[in-house]
Amino acid sequence: MKKLINAPDAVVREALEGMEHAYGDRLRISYDPAFIVRSDAPVQGKVGIVSGGGSGHEPMHGGFVGMGMLDAACPGEVFTSPTPDQMLEATKAVDGGAGVLHIVKNYTGDVMNFEMAADLAKGEGIEVEAVVTNDDVAVQDSLYTAGRRGVGITVIAEKICGAAAEERKSLAEVAEICRRVNGEGRSMGMALTPCMTPSSGEPSFELGEDEMEIGIGIHGEPGRYREPMAPAAQVVDRLATAVVEDLPYNSGDRVLAMVNGMGGTPLIELFVVYRELHRFLQERGITIERRLVGNYITSLEMAGCSITLLRLDDELTRLWDAPVDTPALRWGA
Amino acid sequence: MKKLINAPDAVVREALEGMEHAYGDRLRISYDPAFIVRSDAPVQGKVGIVSGGGSGHEPMHGGFVGMGMLDAACPGEVFTSPTPDQMLEATKAVDGGAGVLHIVKNYTGDVMNFEMAADLAKGEGIEVEAVVTNDDVAVQDSLYTAGRRGVGITVIAEKICGAAAEERKSLAEVAEICRRVNGEGRSMGMALTPCMTPSSGEPSFELGEDEMEIGIGIHGEPGRYREPMAPAAQVVDRLATAVVEDLPYNSGDRVLAMVNGMGGTPLIELFVVYRELHRFLQERGITIERRLVGNYITSLEMAGCSITLLRLDDELTRLWDAPVDTPALRWGA
Repeated sequence: MKKLINAPDAVVREALEGMEHAYGDRLRISYDPAFIVRSDAPVQGKVGIVSGGGSGHEPMHGGFVGMGMLDAACPGEVFTSPTPDQMLEATKAVDGGAGVLHIVKNYTGDVMNFEMAADLAKGEGIEVEAVVTNDDVAVQDSLYTAGRRGVGITVIAEKICGAAAEERKSLAEVAEICRRVNGEGRSMGMALTPCMTPSSGEPSFELGEDEMEIGIGIHGEPGRYREPMAPAAQVVDRLATAVVEDLPYNSGDRVLAMVNGMGGTPLIELFVVYRELHRFLQERGITIERRLVGNYITSLEMAGCSITLLRLDDELTRLWDAPVDTPALRWGA
Repeated sequence: MKKLINAPDAVVREALEGMEHAYGDRLRISYDPAFIVRSDAPVQGKVGIVSGGGSGHEPMHGGFVGMGMLDAACPGEVFTSPTPDQMLEATKAVDGGAGVLHIVKNYTGDVMNFEMAADLAKGEGIEVEAVVTNDDVAVQDSLYTAGRRGVGITVIAEKICGAAAEERKSLAEVAEICRRVNGEGRSMGMALTPCMTPSSGEPSFELGEDEMEIGIGIHGEPGRYREPMAPAAQVVDRLATAVVEDLPYNSGDRVLAMVNGMGGTPLIELFVVYRELHRFLQERGITIERRLVGNYITSLEMAGCSITLLRLDDELTRLWDAPVDTPALRWGA
């Protein structure tokens, strides 16, 4: 196993220490229990926003902590849900009196632990709402999930809800916006190669020399089907057709489009994918009004990509454009 | 060969089309000859800054075009120098009457072609200065280079010179700052895996299952030596020792530190590397005052990392902090 690490069981802690050294001017790190929090938290009168999940998907979620996005993120071990005490302590750390929103990707462990943390926080007098994202159209149930998986829309929901919270919208309003983003968003991903967790040292799955997996999950969970390698145009047709037909997105719709790399895909390839997505949507009368191209929700060193669409309205567009200042997303601030 | 492309000889052009669709509000793309230029170029009275080189190192250089950084970038085919006519046309497109700086990584083809372009531009009455970066301490000469290779410091020079040009410093002043950045900067990289150009379909070199290459070049050119895989702490000791002893950086120095991913390395590993670099420098009394952790100068899907240091003074720090608004680096704007 070739990884730039010291020891498999030290990766998450040591990466957090690296983040603390790099961003200590704007983030604070708690190690026991582990969470990353804005250094100015809690912001009085602002809804606090907490997300979290297994590590190995960086920059999600820790790279999205900061002004205009998350107040805190709880990293689990690699591909492992964080624990309720992490989520509880993060919730307490960001409660500025206006309540706290939990944004939870639909994975069984994450959902269960965030529910437990919400109950505990409510017991301490903190108002908590939770929104579970489930935008992955690939499969109905999966290895770690009942119902659809929560993937790329989570990044976008964190940005948009973060902006809504900065405007001092109420907890009910921020949660409603989060549900709307999830409801108007759809994703699907694919892989060219598996990845390897530091602790297993084995590939997450096997894929033939000339095969790709369409509809892959972000931990290498099985997708819809395998087929021989094909040109980028055909890969995008596969993914985007499933995404567009699911909502469905219709001619005249304005969308935010994210082309996300799984971690091991060169950026030059993501721009080829973006070109094909632009063509695909243009042929259907769907206009890309905002976009994000890069590595945002990854699967360690997996090669592949995912496509996420969000149908925009004026409010969501305005909230997307609002200033954000985090390690991984930064503009206008 | 598993790549998200349509055809090997279409990759660069199609990725440019993707960039045009994604960033058409701020960048213009010329296809014949190929270059990427700020949409508001030429900026009257401002020194224009042009860089370029083979593709496959994204986001460098095209992702660094915009306010506060490059005015134009010339992408060659993958790992192949751009041609003098690309550089000449880019130079003409960004000349706002204050002259144009060429920032050139020390690779024989790049240097030769930029020299030719500069001569042609001067013949058309444009004042041109060129600065060749050569910060890679790994080897003296290399496969494509006489003298040291130009690597990570190029990214930092483009940012700092871009800020200097925005302040309306003269061509001589911006060129002097560029030479200073190169003079105060040193880098070294390593690889865990090779990469594969789309046209060759073969790995750029062979590396054993349990080996790494220390001092690798950004096209997979040989480095200093191979050795068995080792913990991140030891990898950083190898790279950082060579970097620090070369300038040398001394106790009391303030530095900008870049931990750069080669394209296929998960971000969580780069933060482990950053942790080790912080430790290494702290032990030597060297203070990291600014940092960059991520994929900035890549080698397609190669797994590995590089470390770059720049010794800071107040002026360089101020120019680094100045607003920048490009696809890949964006702050304060």
